[in-house]
Amino acid sequence: LSSLHIRGLSGLPEVRAGDDLAASIVAATGPEPLRDGQVVTIAHKVVSKSEGAMVALSEVQPGARARALAAEQQRDPRAVQVVLDQSAEVLRERNGVLICRTHHGFVCANAGVDASNAPDGNTLIVLPRDPDASARRLRTRLRQLTGAAPAVLISDSFGRAWRHGQCDVAIGCAGLMPLEDWRGRNDSVGRELSATWLAVADAVAAAADLARAKDSREPVAIVTGLERFVSAHDGPGAVALLRPLREDLFR
Amino acid sequence: LSSLHIRGLSGLPEVRAGDDLAASIVAATGPEPLRDGQVVTIAHKVVSKSEGAMVALSEVQPGARARALAAEQQRDPRAVQVVLDQSAEVLRERNGVLICRTHHGFVCANAGVDASNAPDGNTLIVLPRDPDASARRLRTRLRQLTGAAPAVLISDSFGRAWRHGQCDVAIGCAGLMPLEDWRGRNDSVGRELSATWLAVADAVAAAADLARAKDSREPVAIVTGLERFVSAHDGPGAVALLRPLREDLFR
Repeated sequence: LSSLHIRGLSGLPEVRAGDDLAASIVAATGPEPLRDGQVVTIAHKVVSKSEGAMVALSEVQPGARARALAAEQQRDPRAVQVVLDQSAEVLRERNGVLICRTHHGFVCANAGVDASNAPDGNTLIVLPRDPDASARRLRTRLRQLTGAAPAVLISDSFGRAWRHGQCDVAIGCAGLMPLEDWRGRNDSVGRELSATWLAVADAVAAAADLARAKDSREPVAIVTGLERFVSAHDGPGAVALLRPLREDLFR
Repeated sequence: LSSLHIRGLSGLPEVRAGDDLAASIVAATGPEPLRDGQVVTIAHKVVSKSEGAMVALSEVQPGARARALAAEQQRDPRAVQVVLDQSAEVLRERNGVLICRTHHGFVCANAGVDASNAPDGNTLIVLPRDPDASARRLRTRLRQLTGAAPAVLISDSFGRAWRHGQCDVAIGCAGLMPLEDWRGRNDSVGRELSATWLAVADAVAAAADLARAKDSREPVAIVTGLERFVSAHDGPGAVALLRPLREDLFR
């Protein structure tokens, strides 16, 4: 129970819209087939690509607000329009970055819109429309293909308000308990653990990101040793990780 | 390179002020001795305890501000005074929690002061005074004891502004590259990676936390497979992860 293994999956082919991503993952697992209790972690970009969650810049008409923000930030007004289209609210604008709350409720830079790893210079990859639903679909398909039902986690790299750099967090999951609540339980010497509410799915996302180099095509990593967090039912998904607006102290 | 293994270390004895924590860790490693290139991750509480970074509530005289905040939040005014003593600034107060910037520069709830896992009900554990220095000392001592120089990482569980639950982050490290900067480098299909600046040390902290159950005495986990981030020199430490005040958009 206190040992964890993470394997980056190499050999995944370039993903295109309409591709059967689950089948590609199964093909790439090689001699070690997927098992119940594992967690298949997937960087969202390949999920977005397979779902066609992409926007061609040439088809975007920037509005007045996008043009104004783009002028301030010296960015392509069409790219800014795509960010605004993905956003329910812009929380901050500075240093060439827009900190947005997406329609899903994720707070992140540029609403998760990213040009890196896009198939060509004209296309922006956006977040999947419903990443929890994407995770559930992928899990169902993995089960169809293999008979095993590992949990599925979809991640993105988010910056943090007070710390440099980015960590991967869960934007979608199926079959993985997103949070483990120890609040009110007792610790090993019998006192109450006052504030122990583990963001399991985010920790798994961050861990998986360490098992793959950014310059290789390794969007998928397989985590073994987290059986205690994996369930047959799909569970509440990563949406359970979102702090509701009324509790937001930093809006 | 794309495989990671994390082992929670069991059998660590209860830690007291003045204890040789490195020696306890070495004794607990058992038949698998520490090696160069590994990362020894340690929950800060045992580091704080070994350094005597604890405050006896009975010796605290709460000031006017602590008494006022405690009355609002229905807390022990002495505990609030300890939090204020650890803080350079209180950013937010609500829901019984103070979000503080510590003297080190960490932004977290209650300035990292925690009553859980404290040796008795009268004592609060605070963060080490200089966690990077603690990590360097522990690394030096591990090298003395074993001849190997694994990196050392000291972690704490921090909440996040917009997400439920907590993830472990690095508050101190030695021999571990805290950040990996891919900004401006090219991705696998040759385009620029626009915003890829990995908070390696925070991801390692989060990953290690998955390898131990909160109710067991497993404050230490050994991570293998991150040799590319481990150096002979101690490096800049976790202080490199702190976003400077002038860049803080959410103060």
